[in-house]
Parts: sequence; structure tokens; C-alpha cells
Amino acid sequence: MKVSIIGVGLLGGSFALALREKYPHLEFVGVDKSPVNQKIALAMGIVDEILPLEEALQVAELNVLATPVDIIMQLLPQMLDQLPAGRTVMDLGSTKGLICEIADAHPRRGQFVAVHPMAGTEHSGPGAAFKELLPTKNVIICDSEKSHPDSLALVEAFLHDIGMKVHYMTPTEHDLHLAYVSHLSHISSFALGLTVLEKEKDEKAIFDMASTGFSSTVRLAKSSPQMWAPIFDQNKKNVSRALGDYIKLLKKFKEAIDSEDLDTSLDFMQKANDIGRILAGIEKK
Amino acid sequence: MKVSIIGVGLLGGSFALALREKYPHLEFVGVDKSPVNQKIALAMGIVDEILPLEEALQVAELNVLATPVDIIMQLLPQMLDQLPAGRTVMDLGSTKGLICEIADAHPRRGQFVAVHPMAGTEHSGPGAAFKELLPTKNVIICDSEKSHPDSLALVEAFLHDIGMKVHYMTPTEHDLHLAYVSHLSHISSFALGLTVLEKEKDEKAIFDMASTGFSSTVRLAKSSPQMWAPIFDQNKKNVSRALGDYIKLLKKFKEAIDSEDLDTSLDFMQKANDIGRILAGIEKK
Repeated sequence: MKVSIIGVGLLGGSFALALREKYPHLEFVGVDKSPVNQKIALAMGIVDEILPLEEALQVAELNVLATPVDIIMQLLPQMLDQLPAGRTVMDLGSTKGLICEIADAHPRRGQFVAVHPMAGTEHSGPGAAFKELLPTKNVIICDSEKSHPDSLALVEAFLHDIGMKVHYMTPTEHDLHLAYVSHLSHISSFALGLTVLEKEKDEKAIFDMASTGFSSTVRLAKSSPQMWAPIFDQNKKNVSRALGDYIKLLKKFKEAIDSEDLDTSLDFMQKANDIGRILAGIEKK
Repeated sequence: MKVSIIGVGLLGGSFALALREKYPHLEFVGVDKSPVNQKIALAMGIVDEILPLEEALQVAELNVLATPVDIIMQLLPQMLDQLPAGRTVMDLGSTKGLICEIADAHPRRGQFVAVHPMAGTEHSGPGAAFKELLPTKNVIICDSEKSHPDSLALVEAFLHDIGMKVHYMTPTEHDLHLAYVSHLSHISSFALGLTVLEKEKDEKAIFDMASTGFSSTVRLAKSSPQMWAPIFDQNKKNVSRALGDYIKLLKKFKEAIDSEDLDTSLDFMQKANDIGRILAGIEKK
């Protein structure tokens, strides 16, 4: 059985490596427009061969669409057009609303499974892939009832067998929650990095004075702009609302600091501390 | 030779543990108003005995003031009042402007060394202390020329011998830089945690959907409010300016998202990516 990975980067590559560990007899076909990514994916043993998309679709039982979300929107209808009966396409995109809308408009909607694994790092490309990225993490399937039972069962079995915890929700729920628990953290981190860079023209000052706390908070600012710009765009209504809420809170905190209102500062931080309980669970995952 | 640790928490405790490893014959005296912290500090072998502050000052060659910065401001003048000739007080506070002003007004200014190690975690208390926290990290001494050469030499020797890299600057420079590379990251993280908590009344949604990226960005939101409220207050001019810069950038980014201006989003993130080069250095430290 063959699985194609379209977009052999961090997520697609890590999914292939985890599947390979579990199913040594699966064969992997890579599709990637970058010749460098092709070479790296072959050299790392992520895929066994590179094929053009059209050919990959003819040989693979499951096609994993793991490109940035703007490319998913372009490729998904084309792929469904060409998909042989009984075969499946799943995506790994960080937004689900527009992608599911596109799928819904296609007569082969049943052969598509909309998937989003809650995992990633600030790195990208096949060189960043590692087989431990996905196992033990949560993964969300949207509109599962719109997928054909066989397509859904295949995807669920793969996700389950590499040790992921499968959750189900609508694309609307997914995009709203993700704006808060993922998209917003990326923006806060990008903005933090840029604020410090614009102020501290002298890099040595950052280097000498930043601690591991800064490093951790700003880690996501290293993430790929090409990947994130279309995510923010596709989820703009929710992201804008989350960002508005965040700015409002920051302004309140600034007012408390400006007016030396230590009680409000303390209250603000004590409430925020509560995230600790929840993080304890996430870190254990 | 005895060293007193006033405020046996994460920083004071970690400093004692690192010194103990290097100088097995040093004796450590703990001063802490919390009976629980006293017991933990003794049980962990951070200190050998607990004494009231007045008595500790009579027996210790070096007194390490490692309380929150508001308590440093209260205790420093009292301690200098009672400090025998030839003895030294150093602090480990995250702000330096007001602390150095208080020291400057005291006739025993020379016996004080103003120190800030660029290290910490989101945890607090003696139970969070570990001997690896400070070694290899940067540490800043402010107004070193105002310290008596013997006091300065003792503190520099200790910092150097536990493997820290010593830098020198004025309190004004210190507080300005720290607002950007440390205080701002804490606020951005507190605000992120609180924004998500206020939105996601259903904790399970956060738990199921947050990834390690969220966890890392929001880690500092677990930090101690009692420690940070006085830091923000003492450094309010710089923190308010840094926070103002941060809010301004976030608004620009929100505008770019709202107006579907992907070029500006991309540009913003590409510039922020540059922090990666600098982080690479910090993480190696």
C-alpha cells in the first residue's frame, strides 16, 4: 500500500516517519515543488520516491495534503477531480472553515477527511521532521460525518495507531478555538520579537540580557511567514477578534502600570496564573 | 566563611547551591519570613541554619538579598545601617534604578554591589531552586565603580567561579533594556494566558487544542505575581513604553489581517524571524 505526502515538510514528513515506524511495509511517495525538499525527503528516508502530483494520485491509497493552507485550497479540488474511486485525501491544515467549504462543494466530498494535528515546532521543511512530533498529541477531525466511512476509518486507524488522540468538531468550532489557543500565540510572539528588534538595534544588548524566559516566549517568532500568513488570512474573523481581546487586555494592564494600580496588576497576573493548571496537562501529553 | 541568603527562593537558593558546589567549605545562613521556605531550604541543603536578619548580618561575610524588589527596597537601607565594616551586601533584583538610588543615598554605598543574573524560570520558592540555573548565564553588575574594590572583587569572583558571564552597565541602561527583553515578555505571556482563559470558559477545549507552541509562549504566565507586580511598578516608565510599542505593532498587524493585506503580514513576520539568529546564541548559552 502506498501513501503520498504532498508537501514534504515538518508535518507531512513527521506523519510519514511516524507511520513508517508503525507500518514498515507502507511505501511513501513524495510530491514537492522544491527540488531541495525532494532530495532531503529521500535522503532522510521520509519517502521512497518522488512523483508528480497526477501520478502520485494514481498509485496512492491515501494522499496526505500537508502544504500551507493557501496551497491546500488550490490543490484540494484538483486532487478530488483526479482521485480514483475508493481512494482518500486528508489534509493537515491549521484552518478548517474554508477548506471544508471547498470540499463540501465537490461531488467527491466523501473521499476527503479534514484533519488538524495539534503539534508543530517553529521549524519547517523536511529537515525539521521527526517521528516523535505527532505521537501522544491531540488531533482534530472536522465534519467526520461528511467523510465516507471507509475513508474515515482508514484515517482514524492511522492516527490512532501512531498514538494520537482523536477529537471531533465542526470547522466553525475548530477555527474559533484555534484562533485563541494557537494563532494568537504566534502573533503575540512575532510581535514581541519585532518590538524588541526594533528597539534594540544593538543585537549584543539582546544577546547579553535576554534570558531563557524571553527565548521561550519568542520562540514561535521563528515560524514560517509563508505558512502563517495564509492561516491568519483564512481565519481572519476569529484571529482579529482574538487579537482585539488581547490588545484590550494589554491596554488595561498598561493603564494599571501607568496609574501604579498594583492591585489590578496583581489580580490580572493571579488570574493568568490559572493557565498553569491547564499547561501541566499539556506538557504531560 | 559564611554567606547569608535573604529570601531563600528560586534565585537565592540556586545561587547558594551553585556556590556550594564550587566552595564546599562555605557555610550558608538562610533568612526567610516563611516557616515553610525555611524548612524546605534546610531540607534541600540550600542553607545550614536559619537566623533572623540582624544575626545573619553579624556573621556573614557576604549577604545576598534575593527577595522581590519591593522588599529589597525596604531591607537594603536597614541592612546597610547594621552592616559591620568590611562586609558586603549584594542584591539579585530584576530592576536596578530605584534600588541603586536608595543605595546611593546611604553612607555605606561602597559595601553594596548591584547584581542581576539573566536567569529564572516560571517557578518560585526554594523547592524550585537548582544548582544549574545560574552557571553559563549572563549577569549584570550596575554602577560597579560605586562599590568598594574589595566588595566588588568578592562578588565578581563568586559570579565568575560559578560560571557566569559578567557584564557592566548603568542602572538606567539596565532598566531600559530589561523592559524590552524580559519584562515585556512576561506581560505578553500573562495577557495571552488571560485572554485564552477568559474566552475558553471550557477548559477542556484549551487542553485538547493547545499545542506545545501555546505552552511555550504562555509559560511565563505561571510566574509569581508577588514578584512581578513590584518589578513592573519600579520600572514603570520603561515597561509602559515597551508595552506601548508592543500594542502599536499588534494593532498594525491586526489592521493588516483585517484588510487582507498579506504583504504587510508577510513583511512583519519576515522581520520578526530575524530574532531566530539571536535566539540561536541565547539557547547555546
